[in-house]
Amino acid sequence: MPERIAIIGLGLIGGSVARGLRARGHEGVLVGCVRTPADADRALALGLVDEAGTDAAVAVAGADLVVVAVPIGAMADTLATIAPALAPAAAVTDVGSTKLSVIAEARAGLGERFARFVPGHPIAGTEHSGLEAGFAELYAGRRVILTPTAETDADALATVTGLWHGLGARVTEMGAAHHDEVLAATSHLPHVLAFALVDSLARMAERTEIFDYAAGGFADFTRIASSDPTLWSDIVGANRDAILPVLSRYIGDLETLRAAIEQGERAPLMDCFGRAKQARDRFTAARGG
Amino acid sequence: MPERIAIIGLGLIGGSVARGLRARGHEGVLVGCVRTPADADRALALGLVDEAGTDAAVAVAGADLVVVAVPIGAMADTLATIAPALAPAAAVTDVGSTKLSVIAEARAGLGERFARFVPGHPIAGTEHSGLEAGFAELYAGRRVILTPTAETDADALATVTGLWHGLGARVTEMGAAHHDEVLAATSHLPHVLAFALVDSLARMAERTEIFDYAAGGFADFTRIASSDPTLWSDIVGANRDAILPVLSRYIGDLETLRAAIEQGERAPLMDCFGRAKQARDRFTAARGG
Ligand SMILES: NC(=O)c1ccc[n+]([C@@H]2O[C@H](COP(=O)([O-])OP(=O)(O)OC[C@H]3O[C@@H](n4cnc5c(N)ncnc54)[C@H](OP(=O)(O)O)[C@@H]3O)[C@@H](O)[C@H]2O)c1
Ligand SMILES: NC(=O)c1ccc[n+]([C@@H]2O[C@H](COP(=O)([O-])OP(=O)(O)OC[C@H]3O[C@@H](n4cnc5c(N)ncnc54)[C@H](OP(=O)(O)O)[C@@H]3O)[C@@H](O)[C@H]2O)c1
Repeated sequence: MPERIAIIGLGLIGGSVARGLRARGHEGVLVGCVRTPADADRALALGLVDEAGTDAAVAVAGADLVVVAVPIGAMADTLATIAPALAPAAAVTDVGSTKLSVIAEARAGLGERFARFVPGHPIAGTEHSGLEAGFAELYAGRRVILTPTAETDADALATVTGLWHGLGARVTEMGAAHHDEVLAATSHLPHVLAFALVDSLARMAERTEIFDYAAGGFADFTRIASSDPTLWSDIVGANRDAILPVLSRYIGDLETLRAAIEQGERAPLMDCFGRAKQARDRFTAARGG
Repeated sequence: MPERIAIIGLGLIGGSVARGLRARGHEGVLVGCVRTPADADRALALGLVDEAGTDAAVAVAGADLVVVAVPIGAMADTLATIAPALAPAAAVTDVGSTKLSVIAEARAGLGERFARFVPGHPIAGTEHSGLEAGFAELYAGRRVILTPTAETDADALATVTGLWHGLGARVTEMGAAHHDEVLAATSHLPHVLAFALVDSLARMAERTEIFDYAAGGFADFTRIASSDPTLWSDIVGANRDAILPVLSRYIGDLETLRAAIEQGERAPLMDCFGRAKQARDRFTAARGG
């Protein structure tokens, strides 16, 4: 494991990297970067890192590994800020939920250091955010997708792979475009749907007590609608090209179901619901319950 | 609490009534009705009821209270079957997820006994079904909606209210049409959306490993898509008139979001996601976490 690790952004994702490294006995120095002196103090008080500040260039100086864990909307600036301060041998990785957009920003921002950049995305998270949202075991048994480019140095890739293995995660490599398509379907689209549903009902609810009669299924279904609106507006903007086709397809599927319901046809509902249950039950079994 | 209680259908909902009565020390006789002799034996072996059989008319004979806990699609037949066998003073209730449809079926099936019928719906459930799905505490602290009609006898209403209070539930009364609208929004629509999403992805997934990269948010969001397809096709059919407007409205909201995403507009996303998070966080707070 690298001796000195800098983590830019200590929210759910970055904070969990810090906590995980601590919990698993990492012996090197952890440096954190946040946006306000008050948060830097709080990060130290929480024991997340050994050193904390608000200047990303200062944070990365001398680091062997830099983990950029800021929102998608802050990636470009952060990468450009740290570029001149990076040690020549430093490996840099990110945790952003979209990969083509971050790769383009890293190419522009890191310049000749781009080969040391390993694009990454841990498939783990909750609806919470901020300094206190993280926990050491967030990545245990979860997948991390790395999307190295043709230019990515093999030893930077090995360093970043080692980081995630050290946190208990399983690492998979795939192309960035493929990553963005898969995540559009399994993560970005569900977030859009959940936000849209809760908003739709909340606007109806001005006149009714609708949420009073929502049961456990509703709570589960809408949990992701408690996620951070800024973070998710950024993600949807950044992965627009992959999200639009799955969203359009989904709207088309809903139109078909609506027509069947309108015409009192039962077979299309049974087919759709039946296939869905089968797929969902297989998914549950594959996850081990 | 009534001395002799017959429960028709011992799946998640009926089985939980039986288990809850047992666990809370009900001292009368519990009679269960299922569809096969094998299930009747299993219900006795599981200790769900004291007597079990496959003939609903036999099960209700002499009962003070009858709880009809069969799927929506089986309500009409079941109510017509039990009508001639009911004791004059028996109260009858159901647990169906839609109320106008069941009330119409009860009026037709129960005839002059209709005044003894108390339409009900416990706002509690899971995605599981069958004899072993129930548990004693399913209703503890949860709401039950009763939708009595102008004809409903006050003492039948009191008996059924007492049943649910005895299971730890909170009882609310409202009109059946209002119930159907509220539940269309908070339960039936989310089920349709979750089934449709998993089906949509499953059909894409023939060529990809899409579900392998789904995280916890996806698991929560799609849990209700593991619900029973027959039960839910029945519910959607029975509550068609209330579901169609909320589904249409939701599709319209998605179209608006899609257009915003397509045009790269960020403000409509921030507005929608922000309002949703606020409403969802209020909902979480109201439920006590
Ligand atoms: N949430 C998930 O489920 C999830 C899952 C996988 C990957 N991700 C990705 O992980 C990244 C971080 O998300 P998160 O959930 O950890 O969010 P978060 O809890 O809000 O944490 C973001 C952190 O970055 C800081 N930050 C924001 N702008 C910054 C800037 N310009 N310079 C330095 N620090 C800045 C934030 O500080 P403030 O508190 O001052 O804003 C906060 O410490 C995002 O790129 C996201 O796409 C998220
Ligand atoms: N699931 C929920 O979350 C939920 C929540 C609130 C209300 N409800 C309502 O509760 C009712 C029951 O749902 P559930 O979730 O308990 O389903 P379930 O677990 O499938 O149980 C239904 C039970 O009824 C039996 N049954 C089916 N057709 C019958 C018939 N013609 N005569 C006698 N018994 C019959 C079933 O036997 P077999 O095993 O032989 O089919 C089973 O024992 C439905 O009306 C539903 O709308 C459900």
